[in-house]
Amino acid sequence: MTREIFGLLEGYMLSQTDDAAHDREHIYRVLYNALDIANCEGGADLDVLIAACLLHDVGRREQFADPAVCHARVGAEKAHRFLLENGFSEDFAARVRDAVRTHRFRANDPPVSAEAKILFDADKLDAAGTMGIARTLNYKGQVGDALYVLGPDGLPSDGAGDGVNTFFNEYNIKLRKLYDRFYTKRGRELAEARRASAQAFYEALLSECRRPYLAGRGLLEAALRETVKKAED
Amino acid sequence: MTREIFGLLEGYMLSQTDDAAHDREHIYRVLYNALDIANCEGGADLDVLIAACLLHDVGRREQFADPAVCHARVGAEKAHRFLLENGFSEDFAARVRDAVRTHRFRANDPPVSAEAKILFDADKLDAAGTMGIARTLNYKGQVGDALYVLGPDGLPSDGAGDGVNTFFNEYNIKLRKLYDRFYTKRGRELAEARRASAQAFYEALLSECRRPYLAGRGLLEAALRETVKKAED
Repeated sequence: MTREIFGLLEGYMLSQTDDAAHDREHIYRVLYNALDIANCEGGADLDVLIAACLLHDVGRREQFADPAVCHARVGAEKAHRFLLENGFSEDFAARVRDAVRTHRFRANDPPVSAEAKILFDADKLDAAGTMGIARTLNYKGQVGDALYVLGPDGLPSDGAGDGVNTFFNEYNIKLRKLYDRFYTKRGRELAEARRASAQAFYEALLSECRRPYLAGRGLLEAALRETVKKAED
Repeated sequence: MTREIFGLLEGYMLSQTDDAAHDREHIYRVLYNALDIANCEGGADLDVLIAACLLHDVGRREQFADPAVCHARVGAEKAHRFLLENGFSEDFAARVRDAVRTHRFRANDPPVSAEAKILFDADKLDAAGTMGIARTLNYKGQVGDALYVLGPDGLPSDGAGDGVNTFFNEYNIKLRKLYDRFYTKRGRELAEARRASAQAFYEALLSECRRPYLAGRGLLEAALRETVKKAED
């Protein structure tokens, strides 16, 4: 890929990028992760891979505006159209489109080509470890979701079964599970090295969330009861 | 404090609370932390303390709308006015006002009364450890601040000296330093127990942020140079 073509794709990516959790540095991290994985694994067309990495989140804005929209599907079509409009071949545009379409963790549309698998892993790696924690917390703040909800016992729920869109729920349904979902050996290795730091954070935060309720609810009850007792004396 | 009065103050707090990082559960955690500290330290008027905890962030909305506004000053005046309008004595309202006014970490207006010191510590405890990390990341997402900026070397800056409103900068100017700022023994103990988890997160995240750039920038340069070489051949 020439610097001129890289600059063209980068400029389009930047024009479509505006949310903090999927900001431009996420795109560069995914690109660099992907080149690292490709360098270890071999077999990938670097031009397709670089284009797919730069363009993988160009559908984010549409999904943010309407959560029913899948950013991977919309982004794939936008990337394909942009590439054809800018003189790339149908073959190249289609290979980039397929990689973008299949990069999403939640979708039942797994990556097939070497480039698609590497993009998937490079993107998932940016959701592993403390990076995944940080980006998820950023996103939850942006959309106004809470860290946790209180369970039936009045304590912060661990998010494993409450079905509410909290940070703890997102940790359990996505972040905790992604380590088993890598397609490349290198991606899996890099993610595995980050697993412990994410788990340690989740456990420490859950404990810190619960502690005040465990220590303070009884003391508040006692303070409110004390007033009733005084009034009755 | 009667349950009726508690409900009145709680209702006013809820009517003024709408941002994710300073949501209602933050208020309850601060209240429970404060009762825990008061229980260990003694010497606090629990009615003043409970009222000050419930009302300490009622000026947040005004600060969010205009960052030049100090939520502690605005909140103190709002709390004072609300209490007088609802039949509390001037003495009680003034003691709550003073505690609310002096709870802010950044302000040069230190807490004086026992209740004010306990509120300060209970609120700072909710910014210690992984809780402080989580709430700061939530808030940074809400206002659209990045995790980091790139330094002159092209790598993510650690935030210690860059002066940009990133998460790493906030960690260095506030979160890292707050452990030395407690007024009560119990508050300091509880915070100290959380220090290591926050530091571990910061160090892991900084390392995870830098790794892709260290591994991938050279590979990208090589891929772009390769094309030039091919074209020249």
